[in-house]
Amino acid sequence: MKTYVDCYSCFLKQALSATRRAGGTEEQQLSVLRRTMEILAKLDQGAIPPEIARLIHHAVREEISCPDPYREAKQASTREALNILPELRQLIDNSENPLDTAIRLAIAGNIMDFGVMEDFGNLHDTIDRVLSQPFAIDHTEELKELLNSSDHVLFLADNTGETVFDRALIEKIQIPVIYGVKGSPVLNDATKQDAMEAGLQEVATILSNGSDVPGTLLELCSEDFRNAFEQAPVVIAKGQGNYESLSNAGSKVFCLLQIKCPVIGEDIGAEKGSIVCRRSSVPGEVIITPD
Amino acid sequence: MKTYVDCYSCFLKQALSATRRAGGTEEQQLSVLRRTMEILAKLDQGAIPPEIARLIHHAVREEISCPDPYREAKQASTREALNILPELRQLIDNSENPLDTAIRLAIAGNIMDFGVMEDFGNLHDTIDRVLSQPFAIDHTEELKELLNSSDHVLFLADNTGETVFDRALIEKIQIPVIYGVKGSPVLNDATKQDAMEAGLQEVATILSNGSDVPGTLLELCSEDFRNAFEQAPVVIAKGQGNYESLSNAGSKVFCLLQIKCPVIGEDIGAEKGSIVCRRSSVPGEVIITPD
Repeated sequence: MKTYVDCYSCFLKQALSATRRAGGTEEQQLSVLRRTMEILAKLDQGAIPPEIARLIHHAVREEISCPDPYREAKQASTREALNILPELRQLIDNSENPLDTAIRLAIAGNIMDFGVMEDFGNLHDTIDRVLSQPFAIDHTEELKELLNSSDHVLFLADNTGETVFDRALIEKIQIPVIYGVKGSPVLNDATKQDAMEAGLQEVATILSNGSDVPGTLLELCSEDFRNAFEQAPVVIAKGQGNYESLSNAGSKVFCLLQIKCPVIGEDIGAEKGSIVCRRSSVPGEVIITPD
Repeated sequence: MKTYVDCYSCFLKQALSATRRAGGTEEQQLSVLRRTMEILAKLDQGAIPPEIARLIHHAVREEISCPDPYREAKQASTREALNILPELRQLIDNSENPLDTAIRLAIAGNIMDFGVMEDFGNLHDTIDRVLSQPFAIDHTEELKELLNSSDHVLFLADNTGETVFDRALIEKIQIPVIYGVKGSPVLNDATKQDAMEAGLQEVATILSNGSDVPGTLLELCSEDFRNAFEQAPVVIAKGQGNYESLSNAGSKVFCLLQIKCPVIGEDIGAEKGSIVCRRSSVPGEVIITPD
């Protein structure tokens, strides 16, 4: 997804939020804002949002000398989500279509995002909403079909805490899962450590992507990760950052997310507040769908 | 009021909004964003928000070659408010305390602000709310006392359309009123032309302040206006921009506004959504209040 002019003010807000979260002084906040504006002034034509966000969070971490400003918030998110894991499993097991319910809950978990807001509110409210609202874009049947015919799946994590919702979904996936996480901290995106605190090693092989982009920019990922992506017969990509980077990455990629920003909503063709399971494509690609 | 770090992202949003309103292309929008970031990067320590907003709206008007991007929106606002002027008068005349009601309605009109939002919603909803909600800061008794003992009042306008609400208040003020307006267009602030379209010349002497600051920076105003300010025994200053520039301008100044922004809310000590009639002071000034 391209960077829209509306993204500029949001980058400043995100930079400020991250600096405050790391305990930055007002002077440091101002300094980070100035560095963010320098980054934005020098943007390459065609830079996509996760690329820019990466540079901004670099600047924040450098300015505050803090390798992981979101560490505490991430641990709290994981604890909060682990507390309701038994409930998630019950919702799934008591439902008519456990896999469908698990997919919806994984999308519900995508609310645990500190990139767009300071506070994600009550998880139960989000779960209730997402379990009952219609999909704005619904390619879940195609996803399930592909999961049925594949020997494994690459599952790209987004936020910490959301990882626990992913775990509940993975428990219902019948094929081996590689769980792709960030190589080092950026925003509240899950790293290997964060994923392990959520117990993902019990249900999947955790694989670092070797990068600190809040999304998945293959050219900045490790060779191991690029090979895993190449070889995966199906990819589940969680969240806005992965949508921004993989919306044109081909028909084996399915983006599962909540639309939390009007700009992404316009790009994807869905209202803010929507839930989406969208199959990616590449220009000119012919997707063969099960009748 | 000082400029807070939270203001930076809002300046970018406002610049984009103004450029779009003037019909700017995406290229022009990007160019205005870059100019805005240059302005923000070079800020003088101590620059206050209306000073910065002035430079940004300069950049917008230059980039788009449009002297008044808000002209149409302003005319529509005036028409909309004039349509309900008979209703405003009725509300005032049928109320127990007509002057109090007129003051509240003048504050209700302050919602007609394109600096903080794209659309101010339904005027009747705002009127209902403001007529019944308690003041977060209430110096109306002191204002009325001072109006009683003064021979005239300087009334500083804010937005176009809001002018009509001001007119309804001025009709209930028993002393001559000088109605101060912007010297040339900025945002949807009222100029002499805008004020005349709302009929203010029928109830007050309209005086241009000679400046295009969205607020009142005396050092940038004309000598005539500065003299009028100096000589006024009491000043009513409408809106956030005037609060930002006159919150420490002395005890003859009363700021009447709605709190539409959390940063101003924090500065003034009131929640977003509040209504305020606040007497200004200068550090160390002793205000003698009627018992």
